[in-house]
Amino acid sequence: MREFRVEHDFLGEKEIPDELYYGIQTARALENFYITGIPISKEPLFIQGFGYVKKAAAMANRDCGVLAPAIANAICQAADKLIDGEYLDQFVTDMIQGGAGTSVNMNVNEVIANIALELLGHQKGEYDYVHPNNHVNCSQSTNDAYPTAFRLALYRKIEGYIKSLEALEQSFARKGKEFVNVLKMGRTQMQDAVPMTLGAEFHGFSTTIKEDIQRLKESLPLICEINMGATAIGTSINAPEGYPQIVTEHLRNITRIPVVLAEDLIEATCDTGAYVQVSGILKRTAVKISKICNDLRLLSSGPRAGINEINLPRMQPGSSIMPGKVNPVIPEVVNQTAYYVIGADITITMAAEAGQLQLNVMEPVIAYSLFTSLTYMSNACYTLQEKCVDGITANEEICKNMVMNSIGIITALNPILGYEESSSIAKEALATGKSIHQITVLERKRITQDKWDEIYSIENLIHPKFITL
Amino acid sequence: MREFRVEHDFLGEKEIPDELYYGIQTARALENFYITGIPISKEPLFIQGFGYVKKAAAMANRDCGVLAPAIANAICQAADKLIDGEYLDQFVTDMIQGGAGTSVNMNVNEVIANIALELLGHQKGEYDYVHPNNHVNCSQSTNDAYPTAFRLALYRKIEGYIKSLEALEQSFARKGKEFVNVLKMGRTQMQDAVPMTLGAEFHGFSTTIKEDIQRLKESLPLICEINMGATAIGTSINAPEGYPQIVTEHLRNITRIPVVLAEDLIEATCDTGAYVQVSGILKRTAVKISKICNDLRLLSSGPRAGINEINLPRMQPGSSIMPGKVNPVIPEVVNQTAYYVIGADITITMAAEAGQLQLNVMEPVIAYSLFTSLTYMSNACYTLQEKCVDGITANEEICKNMVMNSIGIITALNPILGYEESSSIAKEALATGKSIHQITVLERKRITQDKWDEIYSIENLIHPKFITL
Amino acid sequence: MREFRVEHDFLGEKEIPDELYYGIQTARALENFYITGIPISKEPLFIQGFGYVKKAAAMANRDCGVLAPAIANAICQAADKLIDGEYLDQFVTDMIQGGAGTSVNMNVNEVIANIALELLGHQKGEYDYVHPNNHVNCSQSTNDAYPTAFRLALYRKIEGYIKSLEALEQSFARKGKEFVNVLKMGRTQMQDAVPMTLGAEFHGFSTTIKEDIQRLKESLPLICEINMGATAIGTSINAPEGYPQIVTEHLRNITRIPVVLAEDLIEATCDTGAYVQVSGILKRTAVKISKICNDLRLLSSGPRAGINEINLPRMQPGSSIMPGKVNPVIPEVVNQTAYYVIGADITITMAAEAGQLQLNVMEPVIAYSLFTSLTYMSNACYTLQEKCVDGITANEEICKNMVMNSIGIITALNPILGYEESSSIAKEALATGKSIHQITVLERKRITQDKWDEIYSIENLIHPKFITL
Amino acid sequence: MREFRVEHDFLGEKEIPDELYYGIQTARALENFYITGIPISKEPLFIQGFGYVKKAAAMANRDCGVLAPAIANAICQAADKLIDGEYLDQFVTDMIQGGAGTSVNMNVNEVIANIALELLGHQKGEYDYVHPNNHVNCSQSTNDAYPTAFRLALYRKIEGYIKSLEALEQSFARKGKEFVNVLKMGRTQMQDAVPMTLGAEFHGFSTTIKEDIQRLKESLPLICEINMGATAIGTSINAPEGYPQIVTEHLRNITRIPVVLAEDLIEATCDTGAYVQVSGILKRTAVKISKICNDLRLLSSGPRAGINEINLPRMQPGSSIMPGKVNPVIPEVVNQTAYYVIGADITITMAAEAGQLQLNVMEPVIAYSLFTSLTYMSNACYTLQEKCVDGITANEEICKNMVMNSIGIITALNPILGYEESSSIAKEALATGKSIHQITVLERKRITQDKWDEIYSIENLIHPKFITL
Repeated sequence: MREFRVEHDFLGEKEIPDELYYGIQTARALENFYITGIPISKEPLFIQGFGYVKKAAAMANRDCGVLAPAIANAICQAADKLIDGEYLDQFVTDMIQGGAGTSVNMNVNEVIANIALELLGHQKGEYDYVHPNNHVNCSQSTNDAYPTAFRLALYRKIEGYIKSLEALEQSFARKGKEFVNVLKMGRTQMQDAVPMTLGAEFHGFSTTIKEDIQRLKESLPLICEINMGATAIGTSINAPEGYPQIVTEHLRNITRIPVVLAEDLIEATCDTGAYVQVSGILKRTAVKISKICNDLRLLSSGPRAGINEINLPRMQPGSSIMPGKVNPVIPEVVNQTAYYVIGADITITMAAEAGQLQLNVMEPVIAYSLFTSLTYMSNACYTLQEKCVDGITANEEICKNMVMNSIGIITALNPILGYEESSSIAKEALATGKSIHQITVLERKRITQDKWDEIYSIENLIHPKFITL
Repeated sequence: MREFRVEHDFLGEKEIPDELYYGIQTARALENFYITGIPISKEPLFIQGFGYVKKAAAMANRDCGVLAPAIANAICQAADKLIDGEYLDQFVTDMIQGGAGTSVNMNVNEVIANIALELLGHQKGEYDYVHPNNHVNCSQSTNDAYPTAFRLALYRKIEGYIKSLEALEQSFARKGKEFVNVLKMGRTQMQDAVPMTLGAEFHGFSTTIKEDIQRLKESLPLICEINMGATAIGTSINAPEGYPQIVTEHLRNITRIPVVLAEDLIEATCDTGAYVQVSGILKRTAVKISKICNDLRLLSSGPRAGINEINLPRMQPGSSIMPGKVNPVIPEVVNQTAYYVIGADITITMAAEAGQLQLNVMEPVIAYSLFTSLTYMSNACYTLQEKCVDGITANEEICKNMVMNSIGIITALNPILGYEESSSIAKEALATGKSIHQITVLERKRITQDKWDEIYSIENLIHPKFITL
Repeated sequence: MREFRVEHDFLGEKEIPDELYYGIQTARALENFYITGIPISKEPLFIQGFGYVKKAAAMANRDCGVLAPAIANAICQAADKLIDGEYLDQFVTDMIQGGAGTSVNMNVNEVIANIALELLGHQKGEYDYVHPNNHVNCSQSTNDAYPTAFRLALYRKIEGYIKSLEALEQSFARKGKEFVNVLKMGRTQMQDAVPMTLGAEFHGFSTTIKEDIQRLKESLPLICEINMGATAIGTSINAPEGYPQIVTEHLRNITRIPVVLAEDLIEATCDTGAYVQVSGILKRTAVKISKICNDLRLLSSGPRAGINEINLPRMQPGSSIMPGKVNPVIPEVVNQTAYYVIGADITITMAAEAGQLQLNVMEPVIAYSLFTSLTYMSNACYTLQEKCVDGITANEEICKNMVMNSIGIITALNPILGYEESSSIAKEALATGKSIHQITVLERKRITQDKWDEIYSIENLIHPKFITL
Repeated sequence: MREFRVEHDFLGEKEIPDELYYGIQTARALENFYITGIPISKEPLFIQGFGYVKKAAAMANRDCGVLAPAIANAICQAADKLIDGEYLDQFVTDMIQGGAGTSVNMNVNEVIANIALELLGHQKGEYDYVHPNNHVNCSQSTNDAYPTAFRLALYRKIEGYIKSLEALEQSFARKGKEFVNVLKMGRTQMQDAVPMTLGAEFHGFSTTIKEDIQRLKESLPLICEINMGATAIGTSINAPEGYPQIVTEHLRNITRIPVVLAEDLIEATCDTGAYVQVSGILKRTAVKISKICNDLRLLSSGPRAGINEINLPRMQPGSSIMPGKVNPVIPEVVNQTAYYVIGADITITMAAEAGQLQLNVMEPVIAYSLFTSLTYMSNACYTLQEKCVDGITANEEICKNMVMNSIGIITALNPILGYEESSSIAKEALATGKSIHQITVLERKRITQDKWDEIYSIENLIHPKFITL
């Protein structure tokens, strides 16, 4: 077996080690782009997405009569291997590249061509039989194949992210039920406000995540708009008649993802609005989950010089110097992941804004940013659920004592005493350290003990009724 | 008439000039907050929103029997004046304040109380008859009244922004039709690609804006979720039974905005997800319109040393030193507005993330940022439409000549000659300066003149058919 | 007196009400740009900066023999009026405009020309005698005059901001001394760590602000690099020999700001690096002050269900529904201001990145953003100092009790007992609620009471010595 | 040899495969944190930084008499192996973790302890002889060891980045010289302005990068401020007297990095200002280099329907469908890298703002972001220099023809004809297509041919003199 084969393109020739399935254009990309050091193979769903695209295109080309069935079939078989996750190590292009994805598309075209060649009994590089451009890329341009493969991968990754959010949401919902009778002080602006339950607080966390799951689901149809058949700039140059519709239908069938053909292919080929939208929603989930983690860290602060209403599971010693210290390391790592996602949204925003004329050449960094944001956040959600929320316990006594000791419970007397007298009682309590009960019932005798008991029963504090004299 | 009246709250007393309708708490806010120097009166829809809230609350309180009809009626009448835009100068609180909107809510409560007092024949400050807290704010907290008023204003402002986007979209659509037969070179990655029409390019601009109008409309239901009756933290403390539903219905009726009561009032009271979502979509529109402006500036570059495909209306002399220079000042100002909106999205993001526990205290800066972003972008869209897009003309000859002179038209020969020979022709054209026609038809004789004429007819360049030998 | 005068430029004619000092190009700008609704007159230092620029230019032009002394003198006199803050109402151009500042520069040129005309006994609009372009703008372009005026204003605004930071820094330093003996629990990761003093905490706030003052001062020389004489693109076209140096020296003399001429005028004319740097430092100060405000809100949380180590001055009633509630409204408004500044940094970043070729056309939004950020933050710093920090008091007993009650004090026994036994004691304390003293001295008898007293004296807790057995 | 050893901490026990040098706390970190999937070993300079820290600490502890010389020496030897890059595979902690770096510090402590144990003839895990906390971490806390190691790594990485910037700067400077006589049209606001040389344009690129190198160098002293000896929160608890100074001096000696001890250790332990500053400057470099890449893509646009003043090296076929197309892939990838860096700055900003009280727990994501930004940008700069700038060639004829064909050259007649007549000539040229020469010399006869030749000589266009009649 030869050690090298010689491949050429219109810029010249290159020796390619013959065990490699990729060819000259991928080799050039490897030389040209070394930025992150992370190859596209790190995102297997992206390669799978390309497998689907190339298979559907081969089928449509065959249907349209522009690709011989034998070649089309070989391409389909080769594409299936990519769909199954084989040959991953052949996808060596750096995650961030110039060329608007051409190197990635050619990496795929070359690998599929060479797999197909071998399937047909030829040697790698005998591109007369199956050519990366003329056959594998037939009726396509990077400018339709790349974003379509990207969108398929994105769809699956968003689905995966939704699963992690659902796990987290359900965990919070379970805690919401578990803590349904734990009376605690509500706080606004870091100041004691009025009573509530810990259950309601955790139920609120589940509600807010449920809303974001809904937002993510609403974003999926945007991702499903593809531009296969647009070719170079959306005029469908070099695509046979009917091809755009046919390839879209094949793609829908083989992926079970409800892709549709964009109405305005010129616009669709340069537009990155869907990515900006998805990133905006990802950012929204990051903001909310970060807020929740801030709350968890605050509520579990202490143990003696903090709020200490809840206990997070103790995951690891918290200090290399302070014995016995345990820190809320899980929420902390989730906060940081959220900041990453928020930063990535700016990267995506700038990349989207920089797209010029008929194509957005900055799509690779958009793909890289969305992929990492989705991966990191998904990991973070499972981590938060499994290693933190599931194991949270309540310090019921502490919670309740803070309510009973508070000044904020005066609010419940507002409808009876009016805002001004209530304020004066609150002011006296603060100045003297006396309890609201002491001042209101015993000293000022403004309400009876019975009325007090009615208003300040646990039941009424948890589900306040409107009580007047 | 007395010059001053003395008002008090639980922190002390203050002399208030008697011509003022606001009272002691507003006066304190004026002293405490001087950041932007911009009073909330600059956002009349916000004050109007509060008018609606206070009116609906008074009606609901009357229905629930916790407010005497005479007082309720006076409050309604006073609120109507706010709805009609009267007394704007009384809303003096700085746009950015601490206190999660309490100062704004109290500014409204005090002004309404004093208007109502006068309507009832009392003097300003005689709060025993109509009290800012006990009556105007009855069954409310800043934490439900403020976000509800904000959402009503936001709804109207988004509607207004949509109108400006529609005007812009239609302007682009008209140009799309006007330029439907202007053949021009499409460009990807700043390099000549394949032919298209200027009409398709402008139609693409209208398509992309139409999508954003759709996104904005989809965001409106999120804005319509309100938390009236949640009171302090969502437990509805101090609100009479049934009040949340009743006040929501009144509000829906008097505003004709389809507000609904949030399902989880605890969550709704601290959640700012809807604002993050709206801001994300605003950012998306800004990104897209900025991209369009970049394109307009690029396509009109020149007149002699640039692309010069289109002419923008000449709005003003472009230079204090270079005679005759005219610049694309309208797209430029729109780009800058877009950057403002993108920056404001980060402000909103951080403010949303910083909300702690039962309330997001940073809501005022979110309101300020969304209001200014919507105002500026709406102004920018009308400016772009009226002063630029409507008057754009095409340099048809220049457009056409660039196509015919291009190398990119070789792409159309791809299906006939294959990618490799096409590449070799392109390479020769680039090196020698020869035209594609010269090499292909005259020298290499690879296709006949007839076939050339078929492929390179204007008709086929505009709507490429799949042509083979 | 005529009501209107007719002015013309190469795009046509316009009637200008004769009481106005600005002319046709300003009138066009007014029509073209309505985005923020905020005129440049809101930034008087900017107009003053232009006054200096026009005066220095007139002097240099006179020195170079390209401007008749009588005209030069009239321009100088007119410019002096701008420097003194007169005619502010004539500066009507919107803060955000297209044209890279040309409208602002022409607004200034026209106003100065008309003031000068009147000084010379002519009528407004008789530009043959003093012409906005030929005389007032002589040897200049917007592209050097605008950024130079901007930089002069920026210099003064940064100086002003530094003053506000110094006031804040000194306030924290005073509190650092006041609280030097207040023992309290230090916290890391929201968990009790080891003891410290409240004085050290506040002293740390002053240190961190002092560092930022230093950073701001270091940024001033960047702002002082000007490009007067660069004219249109940095080639000094149309500027007489020696003019760049002469005008720079005049400017240095009349402003007392140490401006220097940039070495590479081509680069200087398109570069916005200094603004990005200043914005980065502004953002740094915003981040730090926001962190401090977060800490102040945390430390003052309560009063009964929070940390409650310090009391902030009570500025206003905190709730429209909860009587007696007082909130940390001042830190809250400062947090929000910080988020504004951080968002503005993104606006500036994008505007800087979008500058193309020989000029950054997005400079107006950079100016607007830096001006507002500096104004808002400066207001915020004084507000924080005067209305919050100056009046903070400590709850000494609460602070001390949290230390003595803590588990974290075990750390001091680490060098004696080793990390592992210390951990075991901490673990027991946490599980049983016992104190560290109880377990270590009384039960396990690992150290004597005397040693305990030595280690846990207030003095040693405040200034820990290294103590072993 | 045993397969496993059993290690314990105060949370329990774990079996550790005995070939591993890390211990129980690292094993917990591995379980707890799976976010990025990227281990800290990917940043060898970080591990090296820890090697230096642990070595210097051991030396200082020995000097202070709190560590037996034999143990100190073994730790130093072990640390040297880390400094030399050995045992990298033992550093398995995820790049983003909770715990403020405790897991990273313990990963180091455990690996060093076990290497030292083997050096002393013991078995791994026999921590009585060399203990991760008591000995390796002696007189330290994560809160001083981690940021110090981070700063050492950062220092080296910034040095490396400066090298890449210098290579790029020199490449631009060489091109500046090469193109010194290439006359071309300067452009402002995408419109033809006045002539300049391509050399001056490229020299400007080198100037602007040189300035950023200066800014980066100015940032290094900030990075050199360390807090060794601060221990947990800056009070130096458990550190022997004199230790902070001694360890700092050792560190300075063994690293040759001019580290100094921060003046206020309380402040230094929680402050992340230096990282924000460095990130701000990194962002500034990204903004500038992105602007340059935008210019390169613009100037090389075409070849036939663009500006086409320069040729970038042809790196790879540019399209999978358009034969012969070559794209500016290198500037494109650099733009995208810049957007990454700008996004990362927001991540860092939010992480810095989120630091609470005595420690910023978000430091790991700051480290991750700065490390990747520096690595990516450094790669991008070398890529840009080697694969693009070095090989740029000029299309001299095209450049010159655009100047001579332009209307912008009228500006040079301004001092002679005045702004108004010049404008009228420009307007006529634009309307009729005539040249400026035609109108001025031949038709209007406003200047002689001789004067024309003087003004429009190549020499005068390149270095304009001030010429009057």
